[in-house]
Amino acid sequence: MCRWLAYSGSPMLLDAVLYQPEHSLIDQSLHSRMGVESTNGDGFGIGWYSMDNEDGTPAVFRDIGPAWNNRNLRELAAHVRSQLFFAHVRASTGSAIQQTNCHPFRHGRWLWMHNGAITDFHRLQRDLCMAVDPALFPCIEGSTDSEVMFYLAVTFGLDQDVPGAVARMAGVVERLGKEHGVADPLQMTIAVSDGLRVWAFRYSSQGKSRSLFYSSRADSVRQLYPELPYMRKVSDDTRLVVSEPLGDLPGLWNELPEASYAIVPSDGPEDYLPFIPELP
Amino acid sequence: MCRWLAYSGSPMLLDAVLYQPEHSLIDQSLHSRMGVESTNGDGFGIGWYSMDNEDGTPAVFRDIGPAWNNRNLRELAAHVRSQLFFAHVRASTGSAIQQTNCHPFRHGRWLWMHNGAITDFHRLQRDLCMAVDPALFPCIEGSTDSEVMFYLAVTFGLDQDVPGAVARMAGVVERLGKEHGVADPLQMTIAVSDGLRVWAFRYSSQGKSRSLFYSSRADSVRQLYPELPYMRKVSDDTRLVVSEPLGDLPGLWNELPEASYAIVPSDGPEDYLPFIPELP
Amino acid sequence: MCRWLAYSGSPMLLDAVLYQPEHSLIDQSLHSRMGVESTNGDGFGIGWYSMDNEDGTPAVFRDIGPAWNNRNLRELAAHVRSQLFFAHVRASTGSAIQQTNCHPFRHGRWLWMHNGAITDFHRLQRDLCMAVDPALFPCIEGSTDSEVMFYLAVTFGLDQDVPGAVARMAGVVERLGKEHGVADPLQMTIAVSDGLRVWAFRYSSQGKSRSLFYSSRADSVRQLYPELPYMRKVSDDTRLVVSEPLGDLPGLWNELPEASYAIVPSDGPEDYLPFIPELP
Amino acid sequence: MCRWLAYSGSPMLLDAVLYQPEHSLIDQSLHSRMGVESTNGDGFGIGWYSMDNEDGTPAVFRDIGPAWNNRNLRELAAHVRSQLFFAHVRASTGSAIQQTNCHPFRHGRWLWMHNGAITDFHRLQRDLCMAVDPALFPCIEGSTDSEVMFYLAVTFGLDQDVPGAVARMAGVVERLGKEHGVADPLQMTIAVSDGLRVWAFRYSSQGKSRSLFYSSRADSVRQLYPELPYMRKVSDDTRLVVSEPLGDLPGLWNELPEASYAIVPSDGPEDYLPFIPELP
Repeated sequence: MCRWLAYSGSPMLLDAVLYQPEHSLIDQSLHSRMGVESTNGDGFGIGWYSMDNEDGTPAVFRDIGPAWNNRNLRELAAHVRSQLFFAHVRASTGSAIQQTNCHPFRHGRWLWMHNGAITDFHRLQRDLCMAVDPALFPCIEGSTDSEVMFYLAVTFGLDQDVPGAVARMAGVVERLGKEHGVADPLQMTIAVSDGLRVWAFRYSSQGKSRSLFYSSRADSVRQLYPELPYMRKVSDDTRLVVSEPLGDLPGLWNELPEASYAIVPSDGPEDYLPFIPELP
Repeated sequence: MCRWLAYSGSPMLLDAVLYQPEHSLIDQSLHSRMGVESTNGDGFGIGWYSMDNEDGTPAVFRDIGPAWNNRNLRELAAHVRSQLFFAHVRASTGSAIQQTNCHPFRHGRWLWMHNGAITDFHRLQRDLCMAVDPALFPCIEGSTDSEVMFYLAVTFGLDQDVPGAVARMAGVVERLGKEHGVADPLQMTIAVSDGLRVWAFRYSSQGKSRSLFYSSRADSVRQLYPELPYMRKVSDDTRLVVSEPLGDLPGLWNELPEASYAIVPSDGPEDYLPFIPELP
Repeated sequence: MCRWLAYSGSPMLLDAVLYQPEHSLIDQSLHSRMGVESTNGDGFGIGWYSMDNEDGTPAVFRDIGPAWNNRNLRELAAHVRSQLFFAHVRASTGSAIQQTNCHPFRHGRWLWMHNGAITDFHRLQRDLCMAVDPALFPCIEGSTDSEVMFYLAVTFGLDQDVPGAVARMAGVVERLGKEHGVADPLQMTIAVSDGLRVWAFRYSSQGKSRSLFYSSRADSVRQLYPELPYMRKVSDDTRLVVSEPLGDLPGLWNELPEASYAIVPSDGPEDYLPFIPELP
Repeated sequence: MCRWLAYSGSPMLLDAVLYQPEHSLIDQSLHSRMGVESTNGDGFGIGWYSMDNEDGTPAVFRDIGPAWNNRNLRELAAHVRSQLFFAHVRASTGSAIQQTNCHPFRHGRWLWMHNGAITDFHRLQRDLCMAVDPALFPCIEGSTDSEVMFYLAVTFGLDQDVPGAVARMAGVVERLGKEHGVADPLQMTIAVSDGLRVWAFRYSSQGKSRSLFYSSRADSVRQLYPELPYMRKVSDDTRLVVSEPLGDLPGLWNELPEASYAIVPSDGPEDYLPFIPELP
């Protein structure tokens, strides 16, 4: 399994979020507390949208070693500022250690990252790949379930309707799992972005999903912790979504409930909405 | 494109063949003379059968940097002795630089390596993958045409009939190329082995195949060049098959003709036989 | 040996200089025309100063594979904009392939890169290291002559007087070479920067230095080639210093003479000044 | 800090020792129980002596990623058989992640590996390097304390007297530590071999050394555990020395006491002897 983090808000040096917090994602790469594995050392990646890039395509930097000892990551984190970025540390469950298996994945302006797994993926893999739009099939470069899930979501309309596309992707996994006799085929927390917003999903077939948290509104966090570096000078709707909290401060982190999804920045009054797989 | 080498004969320190010859494969990784690219620096691999391994599975060592500066390769070459080994240096035509795209590929006791390409592979890729035995589909770990060709050959009976299986693989590529409007879809030199023999194929749709050479019988080479290190103390049927000659010595290297294949050690009087794609 | 490039001028997407020119540095990594080796595939690095970083420390991104197939480099080049950056592709003459041997080297706000060699470096290495300020000795992380030359220059006052510090570094190499009986000990083209200016040096003991060129003033280039992408919208004092020209356009590139150095942007009327080693 | 293992005895497939035991070194790379860090994922290495190599030089295979996910290591372990081999998994305390910082180190026929540290190494590093034989100085390729300790031991007569050379190395570290005001400068468990025997040392300035264990004689182990795979068919003097036991079986592992060293195979009746630093 893996750990990930998504940031959306005021432009921020990556370092402030990736390295500075007490239990940062880099610390989680060595000492995860809530993950299935405490070590997430099988590659990592970051993706970021920048004002400098005119066509809106995010940058992706991925490498196959551990995040905790990667000097290039530390350099980038200290020099790249972004208003919306993803970071992911990987714990492989067997698939190859290679850049094309590292998250986030990118297609056009979209970024995608995943924690979890498709149970018995090798049994479902071919049928899942067949369900991908044939025009997208050659885009699959790696061998992970996560990347196939991404291209299924693209196939099912990510460009038009993110929650619907992800729901249809999940529906196909559930249906193929049932057909192949795989109990509880899907386990996922997913972040996806088009550069303007982040959608974060938490779902699993068995109703026991991997952990996922979102930060409280920046203004309320600042009332509690006026000195917290990565919340000090940011807009009120600046938000983090994380596999596990970046520290132990009470009032800062909220669990995203089972079978729900959040949009950041939200376009309505609620913090999250229900997520239900559907058939395409 | 790429360069490769296959050795079969008396147990030999890999170093004597990989590094010692004047225009060795390592030299070809930097200065290929007959390849499409002079530099083959996008990964490499070796595979070897050893007496030490009881179940006959060959070892595979692959890495993503250039062969010419790889210290681990030099170490292994100086310490590993084998009666049958493959070596390959890669020049990517765009697919990712990752171990799972490096040759040789292995399945059970089989090794496979390839120089060439399927034209417009991204257009044929999905149909080719669909033609692979569904039970083998999850074995495809990388994104090269070469690996898909391998699993097609396994699908079409490599275990029972090597030339037939390769001919049927080529036949499928030709047919799908025609269906998709791809002229001259196949360009290949291929080596495949089960640990007992090497089969080497040279073929291309347009009849202008990449270079491929085999060494003359060791006894006749010794008459010409009694001091040639890697031919001095070997059995008469020791043979090399190479993308390009390891040196300029006349009488040592013979071109494998267009549309033919060789078996080493041969089980008949002829050095090679005709190769014709067929439909499965 | 190696190839390098230094840019100073209007903020520029790295891609426009690193990838777009006809004979870009990336092309030179595969097909150098003027280098000692045509292939420079033993690692690479970029260093850049950014407005975003408050303390003036440049970012450094280095990796051990070839530049031509590195996806992370391509990503960064497409998303990082800088007013002053270095890029270097390496051809090792034997020292290890590791990040700490890749250029540019950094110390505080300084960047340093080198093409050339100290002849018989292994014979002079200990004495050269001893001449480094003991407080700087632990900063030496790799095993190249280039890095030792850097810390010698820092030792000899890079912070106060760049040409003088480099001249004293060269003087020490010349003197130790003489003491150890090494003829023509020094061969160097060097770029060094503090983030405000670039100093570029060309020198060799035997008076046959590696190639080094600087671009003509941007305004005069624009008169010749109004459409040249990387000169179109830049300030008049925007300049490139390169191991070999990025293309064949007449009037764009000027050879820096033997035993001279240039400052960019220049603070006087002359394009270059004489360089003479001196003893510290 | 790190974890290591040394094997001497009947020729053995590396896999049986490196991967098969319940708490193998590979498992220790992820879940060390007695190490300073539970994760040892900053590179690894193996070194082995083989019958196939005529000049007695051991092979060394080192890589910069974690051992637990390295496919090449698994391949080699499944195909290489050796009568004497070292294996090491690294947890860096800050020095660069590069092959030349991975253990074991090799010089001629000697292998060397280390767990521990020289306290405030950056303060002592220059003086320690100066104490290395000038002819050996250029052999230092990396930036670890461990490698400098090795070349100090070579300087002080490793070829003639292993325990004496290591004692003099330790004496120099103690003396320089005292001169620089570093309390408790040395912490070490060390394995060194010439291909015929292994010497294992356990020592620290403060008398609280890192853990080190040796296996009981193979014949007595077999009486206790007739089915233990890696002890079943080996000569009576086959022995392992390990940073931490490979499993929980009582009677198999014995702690090497503070300030002592063992020779395998031993040339006397005692399992170990006292170790006392001395001045060269």
